[in-house]
Amino acid sequence: MATQDYTFRGWLGFDANSAQGNLVEAEFTPKAFEETDVDIKITHCGICGSDIHTLRSGWGQTDYPQCVGHEIAGTAVRVGSRVKHIKVGDRVGVGAQASACLKPDCYDCANGDECYCPKLVGTYGSKYPDGTKSFGGYADYTRVSGHFVIQLSDISLPSHLVAPMLCGGVTVYSPLKRNGCGPGKRVGIVGFGGLGHFGVLFAKALGADKVVAISRKANKRADAEKMGAEYIATDEDENWEQTYAGSLDLIVCTVSSPNMPLQGYLSLLRTHGTFIQVGAPEDKLPAISAFSLIGRGVKMVGSLIGTPREIREMIELADRKGVRSWVNLWPMSKVNEAVVAFGEGKPRYRFVLVNEKHAEMPTEV
Amino acid sequence: MATQDYTFRGWLGFDANSAQGNLVEAEFTPKAFEETDVDIKITHCGICGSDIHTLRSGWGQTDYPQCVGHEIAGTAVRVGSRVKHIKVGDRVGVGAQASACLKPDCYDCANGDECYCPKLVGTYGSKYPDGTKSFGGYADYTRVSGHFVIQLSDISLPSHLVAPMLCGGVTVYSPLKRNGCGPGKRVGIVGFGGLGHFGVLFAKALGADKVVAISRKANKRADAEKMGAEYIATDEDENWEQTYAGSLDLIVCTVSSPNMPLQGYLSLLRTHGTFIQVGAPEDKLPAISAFSLIGRGVKMVGSLIGTPREIREMIELADRKGVRSWVNLWPMSKVNEAVVAFGEGKPRYRFVLVNEKHAEMPTEV
Repeated sequence: MATQDYTFRGWLGFDANSAQGNLVEAEFTPKAFEETDVDIKITHCGICGSDIHTLRSGWGQTDYPQCVGHEIAGTAVRVGSRVKHIKVGDRVGVGAQASACLKPDCYDCANGDECYCPKLVGTYGSKYPDGTKSFGGYADYTRVSGHFVIQLSDISLPSHLVAPMLCGGVTVYSPLKRNGCGPGKRVGIVGFGGLGHFGVLFAKALGADKVVAISRKANKRADAEKMGAEYIATDEDENWEQTYAGSLDLIVCTVSSPNMPLQGYLSLLRTHGTFIQVGAPEDKLPAISAFSLIGRGVKMVGSLIGTPREIREMIELADRKGVRSWVNLWPMSKVNEAVVAFGEGKPRYRFVLVNEKHAEMPTEV
Repeated sequence: MATQDYTFRGWLGFDANSAQGNLVEAEFTPKAFEETDVDIKITHCGICGSDIHTLRSGWGQTDYPQCVGHEIAGTAVRVGSRVKHIKVGDRVGVGAQASACLKPDCYDCANGDECYCPKLVGTYGSKYPDGTKSFGGYADYTRVSGHFVIQLSDISLPSHLVAPMLCGGVTVYSPLKRNGCGPGKRVGIVGFGGLGHFGVLFAKALGADKVVAISRKANKRADAEKMGAEYIATDEDENWEQTYAGSLDLIVCTVSSPNMPLQGYLSLLRTHGTFIQVGAPEDKLPAISAFSLIGRGVKMVGSLIGTPREIREMIELADRKGVRSWVNLWPMSKVNEAVVAFGEGKPRYRFVLVNEKHAEMPTEV
């Protein structure tokens, strides 16, 4: 299918103000199509905290104009001849990665760890080797390397529930899986927002003995309990450090604010327990005492999204175990309202944009 | 052997001033002897940074009077009936641990990780369950649980070279071993003092492909090279972060000052590389950005000394591979001069006290 009868239009941020809901619908020019690429007609795109950090230049100066969004579901409409696992018409998804070098002499790609490739191109906010910019999923179409396109045609979970798993889900699933979450393990999830709710859902789906959601306020306790987790409200529960001291094997910290009681969290780990940071505050993490690490031989680990293989594995698990994302849906035409509400902490627990040009609004979530 | 015809005398610190070389020789009362204990006639005791932190109450208020020293070699002179691997007259050693619960329902002891036992009694500065204090090795005799006494009678390495390995050596050996140091691995050792020189020697002995000593100043470069290591002087070498970026699999950080370029060290690790903190600054570690951990999926791990099994394994390796501690020897009667010189950074690379009442001064080191 050589002819392209569609236009790349999306909701672009032109400056840091765009994070306050000033995105403008406009055309953009994607990279030149290569035979390893896939074009996706976008039906759904989740809103991720990264989108907002990027729109406001919070992680360093953003190269505007920018089209964010990297939890994309849709339909393959053009498939390069060298892409073997996708055909035109397939339901597909793509997460936060659009390209990597994939060379056998790349330590990361060769180890099946494409998400750490030094030549990684993010789905938005990056540049391809030829200098063209990558553009994300608050749009009608996107163009990415086929290697990062996930086949969804055989998956029963609907796209509005799959989309937010493509970054938010795998960002917690990958480190849970890699660090042994499963039967016999007791898992804490710090921060009970979009990523945190996936942390609870996937820790349960992986078979952890106990899951504890850890948040500042008590107002999400009932939701966490509905998902099968215990709950700590660090601002409100007394003696939580003593009550849970040394009781967890793994903690995944999704918080992207530096204002957190990090030493307190570390004290909840048993000997050789692992604390995994996936949230990326714009400022530094709080300083900790070396004794917090040494006293129990504790690990602090960073983890960055996950690989396409892990995304597919996670979605299969979700399908098999009936894991359903908790989402609020917005028509993509109301993206500016959605971005404002996101900044106000309204998601319960993930916002998903529905591109009304390509998909119906689901009647129930 | 029921009769005890010896007196427990040692060099005691009576207040925080003792760290300036004001130790006083005096008697102390050890714990009551139990059939699981061993009394050791001390011939040698290494001087460890922990001794100085403790004497000056740097890690919290010390319970004076205190007899420090936990790198002890000597002769078993009384052996409880329940101790099977030691007999009176054996050459023995003991490190930083004098006792632990060793119960089957203790997570740590049951996992062969006695050094993390919550009931751990340090060789000095701790209290036994009955409330009596533990006293260390700047002394004529010490009394410890037989479980922590290392058999040395079949070892050819002399006691003045074994002694400093019993804490300083195993503190770096244990995390190197547990984190896969060996052929194919490239290892950095931050801080090139007592612990750091053991880090280089044991990383080499374990077969690492490359070992890089990392220190502030260039003045120890020749020594590091003699031990087979490359060398970075972070205050003097230009562009060291760029030159070594992403080039190391493991880093052991022995620094116990909080003034270190921690993010710079982390940037030397390749994807999923491991940074192990063993030094324990009195203040907090420098704050780091979450990106330092997330960007390459890096681990920061704490490690506390090592187990008796690991100590014995390390000494066997040293014997087999001809690893020799670099030491300066002091008669124990000059302990106050030694403590002052230690504080001035004089060790090349470990000070060992020789108890002249029980051993000859070696003529060569």
